[in-house]
Amino acid sequence: MTRDTSNVDGARLWSTLMETAAFGATAKGGLRRLALSQEDAAVRRWFVAACEAAGLTVVIDALGDIFARRAGLDPDLSPIAIGSHLDTQPTGGRFDGILGVLAGLEVVRTLNDAGLVTRHPIEIVDWTNEEGARFAPAMLASGVFGGAFDLGYAQSRTDRDGVAFGEALEAIGFRGDALVGGRTLAAHFELHIEQGPVLEAAGRDIGIVTGVQGIRWFDAVVEGQACHAGTTPMARRRDPLQGAARLAAAVDRIGRSEPDVSLSTIGQFEAFPGSRNTMPEVVRLSIDLRHPRDDGLDHMERSLRAEAADIAETLGLAITLTPVWASPPVVFAPACVGAVRRAVADLGCAAQDIVSGAGHDSVYLSRVTPTAMIFIPCLGGISHNEAESITPDQARLGAEVLLRAVLAFDRAS
Amino acid sequence: MTRDTSNVDGARLWSTLMETAAFGATAKGGLRRLALSQEDAAVRRWFVAACEAAGLTVVIDALGDIFARRAGLDPDLSPIAIGSHLDTQPTGGRFDGILGVLAGLEVVRTLNDAGLVTRHPIEIVDWTNEEGARFAPAMLASGVFGGAFDLGYAQSRTDRDGVAFGEALEAIGFRGDALVGGRTLAAHFELHIEQGPVLEAAGRDIGIVTGVQGIRWFDAVVEGQACHAGTTPMARRRDPLQGAARLAAAVDRIGRSEPDVSLSTIGQFEAFPGSRNTMPEVVRLSIDLRHPRDDGLDHMERSLRAEAADIAETLGLAITLTPVWASPPVVFAPACVGAVRRAVADLGCAAQDIVSGAGHDSVYLSRVTPTAMIFIPCLGGISHNEAESITPDQARLGAEVLLRAVLAFDRAS
Repeated sequence: MTRDTSNVDGARLWSTLMETAAFGATAKGGLRRLALSQEDAAVRRWFVAACEAAGLTVVIDALGDIFARRAGLDPDLSPIAIGSHLDTQPTGGRFDGILGVLAGLEVVRTLNDAGLVTRHPIEIVDWTNEEGARFAPAMLASGVFGGAFDLGYAQSRTDRDGVAFGEALEAIGFRGDALVGGRTLAAHFELHIEQGPVLEAAGRDIGIVTGVQGIRWFDAVVEGQACHAGTTPMARRRDPLQGAARLAAAVDRIGRSEPDVSLSTIGQFEAFPGSRNTMPEVVRLSIDLRHPRDDGLDHMERSLRAEAADIAETLGLAITLTPVWASPPVVFAPACVGAVRRAVADLGCAAQDIVSGAGHDSVYLSRVTPTAMIFIPCLGGISHNEAESITPDQARLGAEVLLRAVLAFDRAS
Repeated sequence: MTRDTSNVDGARLWSTLMETAAFGATAKGGLRRLALSQEDAAVRRWFVAACEAAGLTVVIDALGDIFARRAGLDPDLSPIAIGSHLDTQPTGGRFDGILGVLAGLEVVRTLNDAGLVTRHPIEIVDWTNEEGARFAPAMLASGVFGGAFDLGYAQSRTDRDGVAFGEALEAIGFRGDALVGGRTLAAHFELHIEQGPVLEAAGRDIGIVTGVQGIRWFDAVVEGQACHAGTTPMARRRDPLQGAARLAAAVDRIGRSEPDVSLSTIGQFEAFPGSRNTMPEVVRLSIDLRHPRDDGLDHMERSLRAEAADIAETLGLAITLTPVWASPPVVFAPACVGAVRRAVADLGCAAQDIVSGAGHDSVYLSRVTPTAMIFIPCLGGISHNEAESITPDQARLGAEVLLRAVLAFDRAS
């Protein structure tokens, strides 16, 4: 349904995606390319060589972020960045993050072929350790770039074997001299797979990402009094499992309060001591609330606290809710989102606005740089999985929107 | 409120309880006396010596069960057994099981002091490995005696370190020559703490145990489809945690269907993979249903299966219920229960009928021997805990009822 006015070379982009999918390939067709591993080092070397072959100037910063610059016409303008990440989950797919970096390379190659020079420089960026799978937290290097974390904090993160981030970075030879964050960007664009089912279900080819949901995480602890399963009448029990089950139902209702907007998830839930013939003493669960607006999150949290207090009183239990992490909602820069809209309009894509439910490097970039994202659908919404899948044409269209958005921003800013 | 017509020596019984509580004593005032451990060996040697000092003839069978016989007047009559166990949970109390064995010793000592000889012989029995804490399952040796398990099965059970029951028994020198089950008993009486709160709450001193609840255990597996917490709209989720929460509520309703009769418990409940920002793929939980009658258990199981099917259909989940163990209800022998009633009536005790919710050696004994149990309250119903507590007077009254029940049975049978 979209007019084919493509400038990018879809076959070249796909071939590049498949070529780099050799670095860390798994038997099931996915990738295991943990941050700063030998596999990550291999794809980084490939990426630097490809950028240099495309005439770009490569700079690496103290966290291993790779910036590959194509010069612009106006030496006073800051670069427009096209960034994402080349690392993966332990059993990850071939597109999460990777598409955003390699589409940047395809944009540059396309401009080279056309002999077109933009006003701003263009920088392709590989942000280190986006997944957080080896070094927690996620989005570590873009977080330092965006001012969310200190440099020393990032360098001292350790993996499960006790290896520090800084040590691992040295070991693969990707510790650069450039300051982290010591460069001004005019904008940051990120093409990414949706990692959810919305676009596919709606039959849309492109998601115009207007922002990122806010997230609030809680640990809930429900305490009762353990007792023998065979000797304590039901009426005398204070059963934390029943309290936790009611809390789970309340969390679900809260997540459904604004259809297609609010979200709630309980990912962890365990009863202790966990003996078959003992009623539990305590149940521990995690609660994840998401909403694109702070007032929406406030409302969800108030409902959660009220429901928990009500359940605790009704069942004679103690319920504590401890906030463990929060990420405020992000609204992307109108200038960048507008550039994506113009690209989508040019191409006549089947597109819709969408709020990202997952975190991305762009979340932290948006704190210091005008930022926007472009989503393409992925099969069944499946991601963080070796079965992650997109078609070559979906990749091509995403890269085409990216190219046109960068050009639109370049003209307008 | 009970007339004091005591024959047993309450101070002697208490002193015996406290003396043997040295074998495996914990810092918190409880016991750690796992079956066939050095601590179990020590209390066994003490027990054999005390029985021999009381003039009893000690026989040990191939599973280490200790039978200490006081001769009766009629050489053709089988012995009346007074049995329970001297082993404990890893952090157990000083009375669970132990009271039943040492009260037997007190009964014999009382008869000796009075110069009274019963028609039947009397045998005090220490059943090996009742708790099942070291060698699963529980009630292992009484189970072989009652025909529930094979001898070889019991001997080959291993502990966490891979030590077999038979090996551990040899190591402490308590493998005897007597056949297991190769002896006819006229009756089996067991005095035990209630291990629940019913008697204490009702202000009763004695529970006349009319039988033991039937138990059915199930493993429930609730399967949905895992998804990212941030990218999957609520309406598109098939969340096994919500299904399991509804199943938990249904289990609770089923347990409350006959107040003070039916019981249900979920002791184990865990969501997998257990990641904070991933909706679970599967939830596994245990379900324990109890009822004193088979038709009651049948009704509970039917309700459970119907509710599970309903939840699965409503939420688009798969729920499987697998029976993993069942113990049919036990109704104790009228002749033995009647003897306990007569003892209680003699003493004018504040007593009530009660169905045991926990398993005991008497469950398996009842398969081959007329059996009954006597309960005394324990503080707060707390058991399998170092804080397990009874008063000397509660112990004395229990032993007194035991003595009189044995005498009543001896006269009548």
